[in-house]
Amino acid sequence: MSHTIWCNAALNERAEQMLVDGAMGHRVIFAKERLASVLKAGKSDEGIAEADVVFGQPEPAECLQRAKIKWVAVTSAGYGRYDTPEFLENFKARGSVFSTSSTVFAEPCAQHVMAMMLALGRQLLESYAEQRGDKQWKFFERRSASVLMNGQTVLLLGYGTIARRLTELLAPFGMKIYAVRRKAHSERGVFVISEERVTSVLGEADHVVNLLPDNEATRNYVNARRLAACKPGARFYNIGRGTTVDENALMQALENGKLGAAYLDVFAEEPLPSSSRLWTTRNCFITPHTAGGRSDQDVALVKHFVGNFKKFAEGETGAMDDRVV
Amino acid sequence: MSHTIWCNAALNERAEQMLVDGAMGHRVIFAKERLASVLKAGKSDEGIAEADVVFGQPEPAECLQRAKIKWVAVTSAGYGRYDTPEFLENFKARGSVFSTSSTVFAEPCAQHVMAMMLALGRQLLESYAEQRGDKQWKFFERRSASVLMNGQTVLLLGYGTIARRLTELLAPFGMKIYAVRRKAHSERGVFVISEERVTSVLGEADHVVNLLPDNEATRNYVNARRLAACKPGARFYNIGRGTTVDENALMQALENGKLGAAYLDVFAEEPLPSSSRLWTTRNCFITPHTAGGRSDQDVALVKHFVGNFKKFAEGETGAMDDRVV
Ligand SMILES: NC(=O)c1ccc[n+]([C@@H]2O[C@H](COP(=O)([O-])OP(=O)(O)OC[C@H]3O[C@@H](n4cnc5c(N)ncnc54)[C@H](OP(=O)(O)O)[C@@H]3O)[C@@H](O)[C@H]2O)c1
Ligand SMILES: NC(=O)c1ccc[n+]([C@@H]2O[C@H](COP(=O)([O-])OP(=O)(O)OC[C@H]3O[C@@H](n4cnc5c(N)ncnc54)[C@H](OP(=O)(O)O)[C@@H]3O)[C@@H](O)[C@H]2O)c1
Repeated sequence: MSHTIWCNAALNERAEQMLVDGAMGHRVIFAKERLASVLKAGKSDEGIAEADVVFGQPEPAECLQRAKIKWVAVTSAGYGRYDTPEFLENFKARGSVFSTSSTVFAEPCAQHVMAMMLALGRQLLESYAEQRGDKQWKFFERRSASVLMNGQTVLLLGYGTIARRLTELLAPFGMKIYAVRRKAHSERGVFVISEERVTSVLGEADHVVNLLPDNEATRNYVNARRLAACKPGARFYNIGRGTTVDENALMQALENGKLGAAYLDVFAEEPLPSSSRLWTTRNCFITPHTAGGRSDQDVALVKHFVGNFKKFAEGETGAMDDRVV
Repeated sequence: MSHTIWCNAALNERAEQMLVDGAMGHRVIFAKERLASVLKAGKSDEGIAEADVVFGQPEPAECLQRAKIKWVAVTSAGYGRYDTPEFLENFKARGSVFSTSSTVFAEPCAQHVMAMMLALGRQLLESYAEQRGDKQWKFFERRSASVLMNGQTVLLLGYGTIARRLTELLAPFGMKIYAVRRKAHSERGVFVISEERVTSVLGEADHVVNLLPDNEATRNYVNARRLAACKPGARFYNIGRGTTVDENALMQALENGKLGAAYLDVFAEEPLPSSSRLWTTRNCFITPHTAGGRSDQDVALVKHFVGNFKKFAEGETGAMDDRVV
């Protein structure tokens, strides 16, 4: 059987060549409008009508319409746009595959969280502000505020690909790790809990790491009630999705000192408007949705896609990575 | 046998009590002048004349003079001040013990290096500067400059207590780790090399981590010649001692783009004078000798001392931790 891949991801030259080579003689149509960001969906063009495989960020409605499409591979880990009963059930019913690029971004995301945790623990941002400011040598202040991770408690909100990798990176630090997911299974080195236990574990956690995707059940997950249940001085990290946090409640918890710090990579509105109070809320640190950033992103995305394409072409869809449906 | 401990380290109340309790009935004399920093030596007072054990930062000359002193336990990991043939041979000859607090600081130091490596890898400092600056959302720039540690090469200069712990923390990242020490032994997960191989390995290393102590052989170890041998764009870290680096050559390597970045915790002159050009050299990041900082420092130092004191009192000096002589 011959396949046609329609791709609307902007790729560098090397990755583009890898995609053409990896298609093993099957046809590749590059969209007229290519998307540099993996976070937006793009308008399609006439090329998509010929495709049975879509690689990039297509419009969900268009994928539903075109029954010819047998596989949609999105270039992001998050898939909130497609995570509706309408979309997923339709794909299931017609026997189409939907997959993400979760594995590509798990490594940078896990390293990003480690960087955030350690930067706060080692007072790197305060020292950097002092370096750029009046060049004071705050030896005693910075040393006594430096806190070891050993023996501290972490709560992971969400326990998927990123969380699993993060757990490996955290292993040598000797921390107590809890994780919440919809179905609580026990795992090596992690206490997996169900939602009912979140409030009580929040009272124990020195670090709360939000890795939740955007879906109906996660919106406003981190709300005033849950923030009130946090251990005083706890540090909160968000690299999941901005929609899962009540940002006003979060700013309040920072302003009133309930939370020790927040390190945020994702926001309800992105780009975060320069007028947002989050930029200047005390102990609130921001990165511009870069947790998944990796200099080799295009090549890594194509490698991941090509690996899956081989399995797809051989009918081994059950063995595909990061398959949702 | 009854011992007298003279202590000139400033300790918080809890640690002081732990020291008195841990002395198991032996006498503890607190010096009149107590030192808050573990980096300076302090003048002694008449109390030291009665002591056979000294805990803190005594003057080396005074320890040599007073033959009654059978054990000096310094509260730092570095011991450059005492690391002279005169001091160490005298102590050896008279059967006195000299020990450091290396183990107490290895954990924070290893976490500090991890924090530095990951903060640079994840562009945290650049993002923080943008947050405090014009609040630009540099999504593409920061993502494409974010580099994974996986598959990169690290060279550790010095392979002691800190380096061993750092190697454990680095293990999950899948890096190639070289380390140089005076006697090259092979070790699990690390390629231990001797000094002759340093130049060639520098050409391969993405990260050069300086953990060298101050001694005659290490002064100016990182000099213009070795910097010239570095891989272009390499990142240099120093949490050992400032004397081991030619700071002018380092600034030049940063200004001319040979090195990608330097993250420095220690300096030839400390506190680093606000007039030093290091503060403003491009891609040079500074922390104020805080790598060893831990909020529980006093308690950890006393626990470490008390553990050793038990062994000392029982004549088991061979089993003492961090013993140099
Ligand atoms: N900042 C960035 O640059 C960046 C990059 C990549 C990903 N992300 C975000 O991070 C999210 C996670 O990525 P991932 O690769 O780890 O995805 P994943 O493997 O799909 O994991 C998501 C996890 O969330 C759990 N979950 C979903 N709804 C939940 C709920 N209501 N309550 C508790 N747990 C719930 C799921 O567990 P169960 O199914 O067992 O409940 C699943 O294990 C992505 O969806 C994306 O939004 C951000
Ligand atoms: N920034 C901070 O806050 C902070 C805190 C703690 C320590 N430090 C510094 O870090 C240094 C290392 O600490 P540590 O606890 O790891 O000390 P350590 O256990 O004494 O290790 C020092 C290592 O350096 C090696 N070494 C000494 N001279 C050398 C030379 N000429 N060439 C190659 N290797 C040499 C030694 O290996 P061989 O004996 O096998 O040669 C030894 O393994 C301390 O001395 C101190 O200066 C800084």
